[in-house]
Amino acid sequence: MDFGIILKVLGLLLLIESAFMIPSLGISMYYGEHDITAFVLSIVITAAVGLPAFFFFKPKKMESISYKEGFMIVGLGWILASAFGALPFMISGVCDSFIDAYFETVSGFTTTGASIFREVESLPHGILFWRSFTHWLGGMGILVFTLALLPTMGASTIQIYKAESPGPSPDKLAPKLGQTAKLLYGVYVIITVVMVVALFIAGMPIFDAVTHTFGTVGTGGFSVRNLSIGAYQNALYDWIIAFFMFICAINFSLHYEILHGNFKALIKDSEFRFYIGIVLTSIILVTINIYPLFDYNLRESIRQSAFQVASVISTTGYATVDYNTWPDFSRMILLLLMFFGGCAGSTGGGIKHIRILVILKMIRRELYKLIHPHAVISIRVGGKPVSEDLLQNIVGFVLLYLIIFTTASLSLLTQGLDIMSSVSAVVSALSNIGPGFGLVGPASNYADLTGISKIILIACMLIGRLEIYTLIVLFVPTFWKR
Amino acid sequence: MDFGIILKVLGLLLLIESAFMIPSLGISMYYGEHDITAFVLSIVITAAVGLPAFFFFKPKKMESISYKEGFMIVGLGWILASAFGALPFMISGVCDSFIDAYFETVSGFTTTGASIFREVESLPHGILFWRSFTHWLGGMGILVFTLALLPTMGASTIQIYKAESPGPSPDKLAPKLGQTAKLLYGVYVIITVVMVVALFIAGMPIFDAVTHTFGTVGTGGFSVRNLSIGAYQNALYDWIIAFFMFICAINFSLHYEILHGNFKALIKDSEFRFYIGIVLTSIILVTINIYPLFDYNLRESIRQSAFQVASVISTTGYATVDYNTWPDFSRMILLLLMFFGGCAGSTGGGIKHIRILVILKMIRRELYKLIHPHAVISIRVGGKPVSEDLLQNIVGFVLLYLIIFTTASLSLLTQGLDIMSSVSAVVSALSNIGPGFGLVGPASNYADLTGISKIILIACMLIGRLEIYTLIVLFVPTFWKR
Repeated sequence: MDFGIILKVLGLLLLIESAFMIPSLGISMYYGEHDITAFVLSIVITAAVGLPAFFFFKPKKMESISYKEGFMIVGLGWILASAFGALPFMISGVCDSFIDAYFETVSGFTTTGASIFREVESLPHGILFWRSFTHWLGGMGILVFTLALLPTMGASTIQIYKAESPGPSPDKLAPKLGQTAKLLYGVYVIITVVMVVALFIAGMPIFDAVTHTFGTVGTGGFSVRNLSIGAYQNALYDWIIAFFMFICAINFSLHYEILHGNFKALIKDSEFRFYIGIVLTSIILVTINIYPLFDYNLRESIRQSAFQVASVISTTGYATVDYNTWPDFSRMILLLLMFFGGCAGSTGGGIKHIRILVILKMIRRELYKLIHPHAVISIRVGGKPVSEDLLQNIVGFVLLYLIIFTTASLSLLTQGLDIMSSVSAVVSALSNIGPGFGLVGPASNYADLTGISKIILIACMLIGRLEIYTLIVLFVPTFWKR
Repeated sequence: MDFGIILKVLGLLLLIESAFMIPSLGISMYYGEHDITAFVLSIVITAAVGLPAFFFFKPKKMESISYKEGFMIVGLGWILASAFGALPFMISGVCDSFIDAYFETVSGFTTTGASIFREVESLPHGILFWRSFTHWLGGMGILVFTLALLPTMGASTIQIYKAESPGPSPDKLAPKLGQTAKLLYGVYVIITVVMVVALFIAGMPIFDAVTHTFGTVGTGGFSVRNLSIGAYQNALYDWIIAFFMFICAINFSLHYEILHGNFKALIKDSEFRFYIGIVLTSIILVTINIYPLFDYNLRESIRQSAFQVASVISTTGYATVDYNTWPDFSRMILLLLMFFGGCAGSTGGGIKHIRILVILKMIRRELYKLIHPHAVISIRVGGKPVSEDLLQNIVGFVLLYLIIFTTASLSLLTQGLDIMSSVSAVVSALSNIGPGFGLVGPASNYADLTGISKIILIACMLIGRLEIYTLIVLFVPTFWKR
């Protein structure tokens, strides 16, 4: 393993991160609040560590980054970037402990949106902005920025891209990887701008509009209001945010196609069709179930149901009401959707619809094979056969997800949480959603959890965001053999 | 499909069933209770339907039973045998509705042990005996008896054996299938006799000893006492029953080897080693967790922990205490063990340890493949490679199990049960355990559930006992195409 290239890229990552703290400094200067020093110090410290690392370390060979180096860069990159991203929370004094600050930053970058703040409305604006901005940065991946700079130094970056991008196999929109990343980022910026404008026109204050847009398009879920989106009691906001949560969990390659007028791509995409099917079915089932709760008001039931389904399936985690008080049937539907998550190549987390679709097709094949034991059938998605290797990768992913989910839930139970709270906190962290049920429901927060619980959930958020394999592989002994 | 052979075998099955009701009649005559008429009528009705079916239907060709016919015979066989097995409950009047009587019989034959009786101590002895006897019959399979008779008529019975026996691929102890079945049944009878004697010597009344032995060796869980094994408050009984529950969840081929002095087979068997590992780990974890609850009495904590772990992992479902009141960590461990179940080729239900072991090895392979993407590695169990076909079959099984679990749990939630009760009732039924948690905990019963809930659980018990594929395949449209 070439540690020179690993440390060089990590240095570059910190440099980029320190640059990304500047807008937050601007905000805190604009509001003239006490967090100015915190941002100045954070920027200086992060750059002071990143700069020498970037210039000092010399890679043995620049041109190719191996599988192993790719996993190392991405794994360490996320751990490190979250540590330095926690500086503003620490230095400004809004967090008492490093675990809390680290939890909040990991939650931000991984677009989870689980918060250790009991209330946020008293926090300075710079901090609130940085918190939401980490969602926006993490949504498309934080190493994606190094992809734009590394090739100019002659490095091949495909392993980094693969290890960070969500879904079983990343799409290629352009022959060169850097180009694909740029095109997708362009789409991301367009969606962001459109959403800010939409919320602003609808009447939301500009600061709230920008931060909630970051939280939505990154499918994160941090809010600048204590009651999340429910604070506004505004149906128009709800529908705008629900719509953008819904579309940000769709593969960004599809958005690119739509922006180029290729609407057929949408209908032809089997993951999208499956996603729509699951979303609509869930909305209908939940609407029927909560209808009596909302005094048989159909419009209100549909709005709450659609918002919450979009929030959970996109793994955003915004809330308009405390759905923890809904009937068990609806809570179970939402809990299940937490496992599903968004589509591949979106900013949403979770297992991803494409993997679940492939698994359903695999089960159908097994049933068919019982009747025709000697038939050889390949599984097709969108007309293209899925290789047996990819199939095994997907099956392994889902089963590993369930094993980590189980182990982490059991560990949380030793920390005094009840079953529903533990289970939902873990799946919420693994799928990068934010709120769970019970003690970690949407009307609550993660402040009162034990330190060990927070560390477990931090690990879950990172494991989930990096789609399990990328982090877990670092703990396989074979990885460290020559 | 040759319906002649299907109906002929089903006729034979009913004839055998009616013969198996005779011992219960004997018991009810011995005690001179009011259920004598019920058994006489049940025997006559069952034989009166079975006899003409057996003689009237002529198979097109006797010698070979196809895959499809095998699935049909076993699927319909279980549904039908349970219907006629419910007659004593109906005719004697101990059940008010057919659904209740059917639930109890399916629960008996599938060795689940979930009961709709609020209390059992007032039931006549013949009924109690029949109830427990269905466990004993169902443990090794109810169609296994037709296997002993059909070959003499020239039929090949491998498809029936395959469709009914638990585990991914049935063992062969002898070149001929009928012989293997007989050898395994011999082991079953020996274990049964030893256990009855052990309980009797320990001081249990003979009727209780016999019925609880049926419930244990079949890993069923029906008791003749309202408080289950907890009624006796006898540590010796607890240990005897725990030991037999533990060994009856081991592959009966291994018992056969041990009876022939081949102890090495035990150590060489990787499923057995895995099973021991899971059992011991669970006992230790639960013991530590419940230690304060039992006033820091280590002996008592170990006894309760060992009994409950053995009861759940063997899918028996006997209880010495209401473990529903244990801390959430222990409840979660027990809930997880409900999915595991016993070993292949045992009387225990559930996913089976061998499948979980194979899946863990598969995940390890996926992690290895991330580091060596072009390596071709076959998965080995006990030194023998597992074919990719079998691997897919196992993965499909586990995922299908989880999907059915989820769907059925959601359906139960619409029937007014809370999440913990629904979820545990379904996994308890699917894995053929009996009690769950919450409203269906060990101190409770299934009497108060709605009719729809009972039907859902009946389906789950049958699906679980027939290892999912056998029943589900009947609902695949391709199955019915020529």
